[in-house]
Parts: sequence; structure tokens; C-alpha cells
Amino acid sequence: MSDLGFVETQRVVLGTEDDPLTLACGRRLTHVEVAYETYGELSPDRDNAIFVCHALTGDAHAAGHHGDPARRGWWDNLIGPGKALDTDRFFVISPNILGGCQGTTGPLSIDPATGAPYGLDFPLLQMSDFVAVHQRLLAHLGIERLLAAVGGSLGGMQVLQWMVDAPEQVANGVMVASSSRLTAQNIAFSAVGREAIMRDPNFHDGRYFELEGPAARGPKIGLAIARMMAHITYLSEEAMTEKFGRRLQDKTADVHRMGFGVDFEVESYLNHQGNTFLDRFDALSYLYLTRVMDYFDAFADPDAAARIAAARSRALVISFDTDWRFDTSHSLRVLRTLERAGVPVTFREIRSAWGHDSFLLQPPGYHETVAAFLDHAHEVCS
Amino acid sequence: MSDLGFVETQRVVLGTEDDPLTLACGRRLTHVEVAYETYGELSPDRDNAIFVCHALTGDAHAAGHHGDPARRGWWDNLIGPGKALDTDRFFVISPNILGGCQGTTGPLSIDPATGAPYGLDFPLLQMSDFVAVHQRLLAHLGIERLLAAVGGSLGGMQVLQWMVDAPEQVANGVMVASSSRLTAQNIAFSAVGREAIMRDPNFHDGRYFELEGPAARGPKIGLAIARMMAHITYLSEEAMTEKFGRRLQDKTADVHRMGFGVDFEVESYLNHQGNTFLDRFDALSYLYLTRVMDYFDAFADPDAAARIAAARSRALVISFDTDWRFDTSHSLRVLRTLERAGVPVTFREIRSAWGHDSFLLQPPGYHETVAAFLDHAHEVCS
Repeated sequence: MSDLGFVETQRVVLGTEDDPLTLACGRRLTHVEVAYETYGELSPDRDNAIFVCHALTGDAHAAGHHGDPARRGWWDNLIGPGKALDTDRFFVISPNILGGCQGTTGPLSIDPATGAPYGLDFPLLQMSDFVAVHQRLLAHLGIERLLAAVGGSLGGMQVLQWMVDAPEQVANGVMVASSSRLTAQNIAFSAVGREAIMRDPNFHDGRYFELEGPAARGPKIGLAIARMMAHITYLSEEAMTEKFGRRLQDKTADVHRMGFGVDFEVESYLNHQGNTFLDRFDALSYLYLTRVMDYFDAFADPDAAARIAAARSRALVISFDTDWRFDTSHSLRVLRTLERAGVPVTFREIRSAWGHDSFLLQPPGYHETVAAFLDHAHEVCS
Repeated sequence: MSDLGFVETQRVVLGTEDDPLTLACGRRLTHVEVAYETYGELSPDRDNAIFVCHALTGDAHAAGHHGDPARRGWWDNLIGPGKALDTDRFFVISPNILGGCQGTTGPLSIDPATGAPYGLDFPLLQMSDFVAVHQRLLAHLGIERLLAAVGGSLGGMQVLQWMVDAPEQVANGVMVASSSRLTAQNIAFSAVGREAIMRDPNFHDGRYFELEGPAARGPKIGLAIARMMAHITYLSEEAMTEKFGRRLQDKTADVHRMGFGVDFEVESYLNHQGNTFLDRFDALSYLYLTRVMDYFDAFADPDAAARIAAARSRALVISFDTDWRFDTSHSLRVLRTLERAGVPVTFREIRSAWGHDSFLLQPPGYHETVAAFLDHAHEVCS
């Protein structure tokens, strides 16, 4: 097993004035650019493609490195030669999603109609819009049908929506730590994060890019708070206890030196997470992408699962026992709805101490399960 | 069973230049004022006093009303004639805690040394400081020993600390939905709330009262965000689902009218909670009181529980099965530590759909358990 080496992010225009992208809301985007990466080689029969859908704050850079071998893509442990998404056999495609801020068109992109960034004039998106852009990328690459679509969290929702919208295109769907629809509590966490962003004085009604000086960097306070809060939900209580417990940041500190700063290690961790996030993510994308998740309801159409069954698509659903962001009951709902319709589904709840974040890690049995499912899928399809 | 009628909040000075309050950190407060209420009559033997300790955002007004019979104290369902804290038999005392903002000395009070509000110059507090002020109030009322001290959440922590600091003074302690020490996740939620407050531009290093115009109201954005986030942890996931589900706020709205406002009912609820909180609570008190909870560690002294046993004090520990703010494992730690030392403890996990908030509500078995414990305590002590 070895790692992918240097990889380059590619860019392609997938929507133009002549061939605009019509969104679920009815509005059209006349310029859609997509950043994506590919790993491995497409087979002559074009039947070995695996599409990776990223989570809320992910990007196209899923594997390999961009120059510094120490800094690798976010799913580098899963994708590469000999790994579960084995690039010696599979052709892996990984784009940044629509509405994002890492190369693909989003709210900070230039609106061709005005010559200025969209801001809040960017149209509200739905899960199907992500899928529509993925489909355009697939067509651009000359691929008709995927061996598999794979994603964790919001990535798994894209996989499920793709199976609902075009089941004949996705022979196998892998949904990890995901959901078919959010609970009120899930929505609540995202809502408070959005409020923190929108109430930040530097939000400036979503046109912070028009402000002068440091304010033009936008609602950095609100975005950091949103990220810190979200991070609490990504780790299990057990993982936080194991990782930080009640340890004080300054080992020499005692209760008589307490203050309101980062006294505890867990506070230092959250501050770091909040602040580093500012360098790589945009507040408007945070609003747009979380809102898509709130409204997502994969099985709202009662025939959705039956269509997947009719296309003979198969699914792998994985949850983690300590994930409380999207706990196993979310995965069980997907499992039962698909099974009731006759879709062949493999389900596994993986034991992992790390909560929702587990989908990015390698707890025992997780990658092995994905590998076995894809190996079998490959044999069946080849 | 009937309700208490009109009650008045009383005020008393319990620390002066001549008799300052020395805090656990070593600093002294030369003016300590306490707001409190009492319900029922003190018996001639002064042996029927029950002390109520409030939670993070509580106040002295636990029962009865201040003029509008429709707006009653926060524990009015528990305290009154014929209720669990039966004011026909018990003399109930309920103060606002030190560091608070509802009548008792806190960070917005005037520092006698400067003639201006303390702000962040107010000393950092520990749980024992709350107890020390409670003890002064008790002495002021001419009471040596409590029949019981009762509290939920932070209130239960004060009860436990009181039993540790002066077990001979508390014959019976009732700790509801409480803890002997916070987990990393508990601390994390409070930490993010504090960050939201302190990063708010109107925090002004804790001297927002010196600002001009509306800014003098302080870090209202940060405080609302902190409250909204905390509220998510006060309700169980089940309760949120039952109360709001995925219902949209505007019944006529559909996915095509989605936006970033309060589309979902749960968003409307959180916004309301965040905004109404601003009228009754102060950001500095929020910082000070949450920090006391972070550092609280009742059994850090390994002899603490043995002292409670030696004083022959008894305890009632109650948790709620859906409380994930302080789940049953917190109560079990208190139970086991006390039991191991030989303290007679009654423990009950109450079934309730409402999560941490249950301690303010009346799920079946909860008030009955408190009543039975206090009835027995009263018989034994009388």
C-alpha cells in the first residue's frame, strides 16, 4: 500500500450562457466552474469510476498532495494504491461542490450579470443541484455510469440524492455517517452557527467583500464561533474526554490562576479549530451549504426508493456508534427505507471512539467494509 | 394544593468593610448585597428550613408572583402549599447567587474602591464562594442547620459543595440533574458561549457599561448566541423532535421559499430564547457563573465524602433519562462516591422526554420523589 504522490486540481467550465445550469429553484447559473481532482486511470470500458462527494467543509483535494508530501488530501487514508478506493483499479473523481469556496462556483464568485460577487444574490441551492453539477462533470469526463458514488456526512447525502435522481447512473452508493433528513436538533446547531455569522457586524448583509480594510474579510468572529460549536458535535463525548479530559492548558496553572481565556486544553483546541477555519472557508458558503442540509429530505417523494430498486443499484450504509451528529438511527432510516423497497443494502455500525469525525479516520473494520463492498461491486460490474 | 400568592424580594447586606467576605481566591468583597425570597414560616425550633439554590440563569424569585399571578417564579410547581417543598410545613429560602445580575452583588455592581462597576475586575469565583454567601444569609435569618438544601443543575452543585464544606449544616441534600464535575464536552459548550460574548465588539473588555448609546447594553449578539447554543443542550433530541420536528415556521412556505431566516419552527424558538434572555441577563454574569461550573470538582479532596458521612447527612440524587447536558452518569458518580463513603443516598433516574430542562418541569415521579424524601427527612428531624 502506498500513497498517491503529487496531484493537481483541475478546473472546468460546466455551465455557460449557451448551456446554463437550471437549479431546482428555477433560477439559472450562466457560468459554472468546477474544481476537481482525479486519481487512477479510467478503464477502456469506462466502468471503473468512483465519484467522491465531500462533506460540509471539504474540497476537491481528497488524496495525494499539492507539493508538501506531509500535507495530504482529506481522505488520503481511503484513496490510493491498494487502499479501499484502490487507484490501481479504480478511477476516482473528487470535485468541490456548487456553492463552495474552494474552486467551484459559489456565492463569492462573480455574477456575470453584475460583474460583482453574488453575495446573498447567489441562488439558494438544493441537494439535487449538487448532483446536477456532478452529472455535468461526469459527462465532461465521458463517463455514463459510476461503479460507485462514495461520501461521508453531507457527502453521503449527495450520494443518496444522486441515487434518487438518477439511479441508473450509480451502480453502488456508499453513505457513511450520513442521513436522509436532519432532526430538529441537527437543524438547531446549524441555525445557531448561521445566526452567529449573520449577526456579526462584518456580515454586512452578505456584501462584506465591499467593506474596507480587515472588515472585508467578513464575519470572522461569527464564522469562528459557528465552527467551534460545530466541532463539539463532530467529536463524541468519550473522544473529548479521552483527548482533553479536564486538563488545564498551562500545566503550571491551578485554580487560583483561573481566568476566562483558554484555561482548559479543550478550549485551546476549539479556539484553534475556529481560527484556522477562517483561512480556508467562507461565511457565505457556510450559510448556503448548511441550509441545503436542513431542507434535504431524500425520501420526501414516496417512490424514490422504488426507483433505486428498479435500477438494481446497491447501497452500503455505515454509521459509527459514538456519532451523535448523525447517529445510527439516521443510517437505520436509510437502510429500512431502501430495504423495504427491495434495494440490496449492506449496513454496518462501526465501533469507534471518535464520533462523527470517524468517517475521516480509520477505526477497525471501516475501510475494510468499504473495500469489500467495492471489490464485490467491481467483480459484478466487470 | 394551592399556589403562593404575592411575594416580595428582600435585600440584605451580608458583607461590609468591617466584615468583608473573603473569597476562595483570597480576595475580599467589602460590600455584598443579597436578594432573596422566603416562603412559609420558620418553626419555633428553627428546624424546618429548606434552602433553594438556583441554576445558571435563575434568580431569587422561585415561587409565587410579583404582581401578575400569571407570571410565577421559576420553581413555582415545586414550592407552595401542599407541594413537594410544602410551605405549609417548610420555611423555604431562595437567594440570587453571588456573581449574578438579579439583585445580588456581581460584576455589574459598584466596586466600593473605585465607585464604578467592577467589570472584569470582579474576582473570579468558586463554588465555595456561593456557599459562603448562602451561609451568611442563613446566619442572618437565625438558622443554624438546614432541614435540606435543594437545587437543580448548577443549583445541585451548590448543594453538593455546601455538604462538602459544612456537612453539619445540611441534614439533607437534594441534587437534581446535576454533577460533581463537568466533562470536556460540558466545558466546551460553555467555552464557545463565552467566546461568542468576549469576541463581540461590544464586549469592550468587559467595560461595555462605559460605551455610549445602544452599545452600552453590552455584547448582546454574543450573549444571544451563547444562550441559543446552550438551549440546544437543555432539551433532549426527542423533545426537540416532538416540539418542532421539521415543521416550517410559515405554514404556507415551501422549499421554494427557503431562505436564511427563521424558516423552521426550531429556529424561531431559539431566536426567541436568545433575544428574551437579553432582557434579564448580563453577559459578565454569564462568564463568571459558567466558569465556576468549569472548575467545580466536588470530590477533588478525597476526604470530602467521608466528612459528609461523618455528619450523618443524607442525599437524594435525581437524574433524567434524556438529559444529555448532565446525563445520568454524572449523577451516578455522585451517588457512588457518596455511597462508598457511607452516606445514605437515594437515587432515582426519572423518565422524562424533556432532557435537562426536566428539572424545571413535572415529569411523573419527580416531585413525588422529592416530596417523599423531604417528608421522611422532616419526620426524622422533628
